[in-house]
Amino acid sequence: MRLWGASTSRSLDPAFERLNASLPFDRRLYPQDIRGSIAWARALARAGLLTLGECDAIVTGLDAVKAELDAGAFVFQFTDEDIHTAIERRLMECIGPVAGKLHTGRSRNDQVATDLRLFLMEVWPQIDHRLRELEEALVAQAQAHIDLLMPGYTHLQRAQPIRYAHWCLAHAWALERDRERLREAYPRLATLPLGSGALSGTPFPIDREGLARELGFLSISHNSLDAVSDRDFVAEFLFIAAMIGVHLSRLAEDLIFFTSAEFGFITLDPAYTTGSSLMPQKRNPDALELARAKAGRLVGHLVGFLTVLKGLPSGYNKDLQEDKEPVFDAVDTLEMLLTVLPGLVRTMQPQPERMRGALEETILATELADYLVRKGIPFRDAYRVVSELVEESLREGRSLSALPLEVMRRYHPAFDSDVYGALDPEAAAERRSISGGTGRAAVEAQIRALQARWNRSLQASPCSQEIK
Amino acid sequence: MRLWGASTSRSLDPAFERLNASLPFDRRLYPQDIRGSIAWARALARAGLLTLGECDAIVTGLDAVKAELDAGAFVFQFTDEDIHTAIERRLMECIGPVAGKLHTGRSRNDQVATDLRLFLMEVWPQIDHRLRELEEALVAQAQAHIDLLMPGYTHLQRAQPIRYAHWCLAHAWALERDRERLREAYPRLATLPLGSGALSGTPFPIDREGLARELGFLSISHNSLDAVSDRDFVAEFLFIAAMIGVHLSRLAEDLIFFTSAEFGFITLDPAYTTGSSLMPQKRNPDALELARAKAGRLVGHLVGFLTVLKGLPSGYNKDLQEDKEPVFDAVDTLEMLLTVLPGLVRTMQPQPERMRGALEETILATELADYLVRKGIPFRDAYRVVSELVEESLREGRSLSALPLEVMRRYHPAFDSDVYGALDPEAAAERRSISGGTGRAAVEAQIRALQARWNRSLQASPCSQEIK
Amino acid sequence: MRLWGASTSRSLDPAFERLNASLPFDRRLYPQDIRGSIAWARALARAGLLTLGECDAIVTGLDAVKAELDAGAFVFQFTDEDIHTAIERRLMECIGPVAGKLHTGRSRNDQVATDLRLFLMEVWPQIDHRLRELEEALVAQAQAHIDLLMPGYTHLQRAQPIRYAHWCLAHAWALERDRERLREAYPRLATLPLGSGALSGTPFPIDREGLARELGFLSISHNSLDAVSDRDFVAEFLFIAAMIGVHLSRLAEDLIFFTSAEFGFITLDPAYTTGSSLMPQKRNPDALELARAKAGRLVGHLVGFLTVLKGLPSGYNKDLQEDKEPVFDAVDTLEMLLTVLPGLVRTMQPQPERMRGALEETILATELADYLVRKGIPFRDAYRVVSELVEESLREGRSLSALPLEVMRRYHPAFDSDVYGALDPEAAAERRSISGGTGRAAVEAQIRALQARWNRSLQASPCSQEIK
Amino acid sequence: MRLWGASTSRSLDPAFERLNASLPFDRRLYPQDIRGSIAWARALARAGLLTLGECDAIVTGLDAVKAELDAGAFVFQFTDEDIHTAIERRLMECIGPVAGKLHTGRSRNDQVATDLRLFLMEVWPQIDHRLRELEEALVAQAQAHIDLLMPGYTHLQRAQPIRYAHWCLAHAWALERDRERLREAYPRLATLPLGSGALSGTPFPIDREGLARELGFLSISHNSLDAVSDRDFVAEFLFIAAMIGVHLSRLAEDLIFFTSAEFGFITLDPAYTTGSSLMPQKRNPDALELARAKAGRLVGHLVGFLTVLKGLPSGYNKDLQEDKEPVFDAVDTLEMLLTVLPGLVRTMQPQPERMRGALEETILATELADYLVRKGIPFRDAYRVVSELVEESLREGRSLSALPLEVMRRYHPAFDSDVYGALDPEAAAERRSISGGTGRAAVEAQIRALQARWNRSLQASPCSQEIK
Repeated sequence: MRLWGASTSRSLDPAFERLNASLPFDRRLYPQDIRGSIAWARALARAGLLTLGECDAIVTGLDAVKAELDAGAFVFQFTDEDIHTAIERRLMECIGPVAGKLHTGRSRNDQVATDLRLFLMEVWPQIDHRLRELEEALVAQAQAHIDLLMPGYTHLQRAQPIRYAHWCLAHAWALERDRERLREAYPRLATLPLGSGALSGTPFPIDREGLARELGFLSISHNSLDAVSDRDFVAEFLFIAAMIGVHLSRLAEDLIFFTSAEFGFITLDPAYTTGSSLMPQKRNPDALELARAKAGRLVGHLVGFLTVLKGLPSGYNKDLQEDKEPVFDAVDTLEMLLTVLPGLVRTMQPQPERMRGALEETILATELADYLVRKGIPFRDAYRVVSELVEESLREGRSLSALPLEVMRRYHPAFDSDVYGALDPEAAAERRSISGGTGRAAVEAQIRALQARWNRSLQASPCSQEIK
Repeated sequence: MRLWGASTSRSLDPAFERLNASLPFDRRLYPQDIRGSIAWARALARAGLLTLGECDAIVTGLDAVKAELDAGAFVFQFTDEDIHTAIERRLMECIGPVAGKLHTGRSRNDQVATDLRLFLMEVWPQIDHRLRELEEALVAQAQAHIDLLMPGYTHLQRAQPIRYAHWCLAHAWALERDRERLREAYPRLATLPLGSGALSGTPFPIDREGLARELGFLSISHNSLDAVSDRDFVAEFLFIAAMIGVHLSRLAEDLIFFTSAEFGFITLDPAYTTGSSLMPQKRNPDALELARAKAGRLVGHLVGFLTVLKGLPSGYNKDLQEDKEPVFDAVDTLEMLLTVLPGLVRTMQPQPERMRGALEETILATELADYLVRKGIPFRDAYRVVSELVEESLREGRSLSALPLEVMRRYHPAFDSDVYGALDPEAAAERRSISGGTGRAAVEAQIRALQARWNRSLQASPCSQEIK
Repeated sequence: MRLWGASTSRSLDPAFERLNASLPFDRRLYPQDIRGSIAWARALARAGLLTLGECDAIVTGLDAVKAELDAGAFVFQFTDEDIHTAIERRLMECIGPVAGKLHTGRSRNDQVATDLRLFLMEVWPQIDHRLRELEEALVAQAQAHIDLLMPGYTHLQRAQPIRYAHWCLAHAWALERDRERLREAYPRLATLPLGSGALSGTPFPIDREGLARELGFLSISHNSLDAVSDRDFVAEFLFIAAMIGVHLSRLAEDLIFFTSAEFGFITLDPAYTTGSSLMPQKRNPDALELARAKAGRLVGHLVGFLTVLKGLPSGYNKDLQEDKEPVFDAVDTLEMLLTVLPGLVRTMQPQPERMRGALEETILATELADYLVRKGIPFRDAYRVVSELVEESLREGRSLSALPLEVMRRYHPAFDSDVYGALDPEAAAERRSISGGTGRAAVEAQIRALQARWNRSLQASPCSQEIK
Repeated sequence: MRLWGASTSRSLDPAFERLNASLPFDRRLYPQDIRGSIAWARALARAGLLTLGECDAIVTGLDAVKAELDAGAFVFQFTDEDIHTAIERRLMECIGPVAGKLHTGRSRNDQVATDLRLFLMEVWPQIDHRLRELEEALVAQAQAHIDLLMPGYTHLQRAQPIRYAHWCLAHAWALERDRERLREAYPRLATLPLGSGALSGTPFPIDREGLARELGFLSISHNSLDAVSDRDFVAEFLFIAAMIGVHLSRLAEDLIFFTSAEFGFITLDPAYTTGSSLMPQKRNPDALELARAKAGRLVGHLVGFLTVLKGLPSGYNKDLQEDKEPVFDAVDTLEMLLTVLPGLVRTMQPQPERMRGALEETILATELADYLVRKGIPFRDAYRVVSELVEESLREGRSLSALPLEVMRRYHPAFDSDVYGALDPEAAAERRSISGGTGRAAVEAQIRALQARWNRSLQASPCSQEIK
């Protein structure tokens, strides 16, 4: 069955029919399509366009069709070009001509936009929840190893000692920003297009606010032409997904280094590594490599869809059918990554000796400079003095703390015997007690600040009261 | 001068020096860099690391350096690798060794992140304002021609009559979503990284909340390692810019059609078209074509930067230096487009006769189907009947309203003499009085709803109270 | 079965197993995987690592496995992580322990690169062929309507008269460049990685040239580390696909305009349009809109994969597993589009009256300027004179040819009575007899030049003799 | 001066004028624009449209204008909207009204396409040359350290021993593919559009082949409409640039690891590293990080421009003006990177002890398996046996070669006293003497094969004879 055309005699080029068909992917929207249709039938009844009996027949019929789909018993037909058609066709078979009243005042244009929004409205809390699980795993690592030090890196060069917990939390904060973006985008997503008809609004007295409430939307669209053209919510989702992907790729990159033989800072639970088909000794961090790579895929979906939208005329254009596949794939990709990574992070084992072994003394050069600053030497001068000292120590093959005081004094008279106390990684970390710093109390405060945000929910979003 | 290295004797490969230098583009950040340094000097003084006299000398010196830069009198040197170095070098020349105290406890890593955030914090209200100007121009068109009808299009085929005002407003709502995104992203942008040092926090007792207040930030970063690695605010800006670009490209595409000879719906003021170097008769809508094309450029910047971030280790990496050029270019691109388009829209002239001429009767076929629905015919049957009627009318070369009632009745007995009243575009539009529809009252309500949003300001953002 | 790990006791996190599994998509490579394994078995036999009997057993077993896969009778198991594993596992079940000799000296790293190259080597001539079919359809249109004139557009404004055939051929030449790119990239694609082992080469005396010949490769890779890391051939394919997509999107955009009611230049065969679910009168050019939109998807795949490759260490990394899905989807997308569009183009009907009706006289303004040039007036002066004439004609509401000679002479004395002959679209087109121009003979020469290129084949590629 | 418009009285919105102006970036094309104009003047003379005297005057005038531009003495005016206008305006000032004859039969549409192609035709051999310089530097490293072994990595885990030379050459081969792509794309680039007029061809008898020869083009375009619309050569250049960027990012990533303290395989010459503004001990590989990051920028340019092209109508559209900036930036980016990296690579120092130290024995596990294969054990069985041996050795904390023969025999009776000979990295590498392998002779053959390709030139391209 087609939902259009005067006669069944008209035949399409089969290749075109295949290109045109969205059923292979949009069938995934059947629960949303049926929920939307049930709400629409009730709205038609309230508007006097269906009798209560007709409405009941349609709702019961749709429930039956849904049961068939849930059970995998629904038989799709070659001519079902999309899920909307398939469901309406089956409804017609089940309940007869009254099914023909369901599409009154509605168009596939507002219907499909409603379906996809409903789908994402269900996805939102799932992603939010999984992001939080990964944050929790990072926090658990931080708490379990609160006093473990490791080198912090810039330019992949050892820079200054930091807490391992601080490194864990850095990644958690990035994910928390992703949750914030989800929360903010939700009210825009949860805006009901239904009732916009093909483009100009429906001519029947539908209660759109009631429809929105029934379907869980927070507000209704203000312009019917915009409502059927607008796919900002898709682009915005794909952007948030790409940002999550980028954050996971950065976490993965750090962990790929840290689990290499050369760093050896962390070992992964064997449940998250694979072997080689050729080399018996290998333990490959495939999960991390995939986490790094999937960012590319997610960026690709974002760009691909922005390119689809670029230069598109207003109103519904078939180009918009390209919205579903990237959404589904991005949802599945995030779901897979965010199911694996919390377990991987929770079970990974930091290796204290390897971390401590990497805290060579030159990493404390800043401490020496700050020591001089505290003695009143301008930082630039202190910096130059310490640079020379570091060069001396490298030239002599002696660690900084092995340089005798008189050698240090040759570089600057302000050095005194308390200088050796500055060359302690623990003390260096503790000196960063400023808010945001790597000192223990600061890190503990960080954890509390992060946990406090977990209690914010999507529901408590500031715009959630918008609908009256 | 370089800010690093024990001796000036060390020489770099000149080609590398050129690759490495960011001065050619980051000099644009000098006002922000100097503001940040003044606030930092004061924070150092409050922390007891500078005497009041030293602080005054530094602040006065920085003011003088800024005056030189403002006046174009600042002489850059070959060895100034970035704007931070250039300013500190000049400060040293102006006020002597005390300048060497300014960089105490600070790193270029937290400094440059602060500068770029300050820059965008100034850009934000400007873009917001220009978006609103374009919305105002669209609303002005809508109000001036509130009763003008035109065909609404789907698939670039005439679909149903809509108000020209409705078309104008559809584009305005898209821009309003862009303003919403700006408003929401602002608190994330206005988060102070300064005080994070190179990566582990500053070891001196700096009052970061005070710094934030002085510089206009809304909150302070929670993790120093994240603070120097985080460029989400750049990616988020580039995404918002790309979405604005996409919206402008869609508006431009509509207008390019509408101003073509074939549509002829709108004429542009000659101040916004150009001629041809070869063809004397041409009036080319270059401004619109550029508006359409610039979306590509903005999408390119977004993708380029996400690709830079993908797989980047945490901590500062030089890769992040690639953040500035796309930001500057996106800002300039938006600024140019959003300066031109409000004027173009305000001065464009809709052509009522051409619009009316395009409202051929088949555009009212939905009205006939809805007519039958009101008589109790299921929509699917009504649809089929009208499809056949349309085919008859095309076959006979007669308009729908020229079909005699008995012909109509041959297709369905429910047709009655009041059917001809359904075939009126004005009435068709007025029937869409539902909220979001193209009926006059609905459109007027839309305008009020949009205007109500204009009063929301960036400042009133829900998170703006976050800083204590 | 896993191809790695000492014991089956080791258990993976099921979520990770799902993330890691490539079987859901790489099963598509089974014909190539089996072809590659058969060739490998024979190479092992020639190298003395298999007896002829063992080799026969393996080859016969692989044929049997292939027959199962062809028939859909192959039963995949939960633990088959990829198609290579599944096939080797089944082979083991079929022929016993000798199957364990097949993987000698081979790694999945060189195996999978070989499979994917083989897959694309089969795809290449198919795409090439379909591109040519679309060119043929465009040429058929050109030939059938060789004398039909229409306005040529720049900036979507009527510019100068051109042959409809010229417009058809412009799109054909773009596709011909795509075919050229395919042809050039083929030798790089048809480079055999097999024999590279995991990364360092196989330690057994395999005849790689013989392997290449047997599998249809044109040359062998020169560096085993590069051979397992290199995915240039994937990126290059995705670029060619994106370029094809862009070309099809431009053709589609032209046709979407031309089939709109406002242009009315072309009507599509009903086999390539759809109706509306709400509006009975609609004929929507969905095929064209999809052709326009799919460019976005193809660009997305290209970018996504380049982003995967960015910053990837050399050697095989699991990230490379992301190569297959974009390749498969790009192949399917091109295959669908290029199956539909030749039929659509072949059956579309140009509408001569609408085209002629659009050839208003101002489109001939350049002719007037060139007329003056022929009388010795510098072009810039001629241009200015004609601009003023065009303004006069528009002001007076008279066509250019309706302006009396004395009026024209007021603008320039060189106008003479032969000027009216310049105002003929046919003559204007014929004056463009230069090579590449829209004159009839030039267009016919174009067609011959294009057809001459069709005889070049992928096989005759200049590099095809590279293998000795 | 504007090249269009009847009167100077018409005023543009200044903001639009700024948006529209391409002079700020297209001025870079002045040498190409003047070369093209000189050739055009001569072609007009040969066609009888200019007298020899007029032609001489124009050519001399253009030379003078070029001299002004070369000397930086050319004064641009506010109304010069692009470089073409600026040059023609100045020519008019210099030689009077005869300058007005230069634009005869030409349009900016074919002129600007010619200019940009000429620009890239000059860029091509420069990039080709620099790529080769980087290959030479890699080959020089390979030759200087032909016997140095290091671990080869897959999944960033130590996999098998390879020659350092093999690793160097892997990157060289990737660059060689880039050179191949340049060579192949050149004939498409070197196709002359001039003579296409605005879109339909020039009506004057211009000798286009002669023009092509004079300007160094290899062929002429076949369709004037395509010629002014076609920007494939831009997209193709941006793709090649993005691929080069990706290759450099992978080389950079390897080197960033290898120069980290943890790997310590390579030290960079201090001329290619920088220090930290805060941490005196740092040696940061900024050049490598920028090389990694610039891939993002180049990918961004590619995507941005493909997005511009997507859905663009045929004929010239102002959107195409967006072609120049990404081209210029990509050229400059490549030029900078490819000037720095050859020196960096040439001067870097491999650290033999660190490399050797990383060749722990488990890296030779594959050798043990292959040892058993040589004794007739099926590879899968051998693999399992060795996996168990590796586990035993790790459990016992003994290296593989420290396991007594009787222990080995407990795992498989085929082990014999010659097994210890298999555990030698040098021998393992030498066993890979197959073509493409890491054996010494194979690596030397690789170097010869690569060098042989250097002699191929852009000129010797198979299509270079195409023009008659």
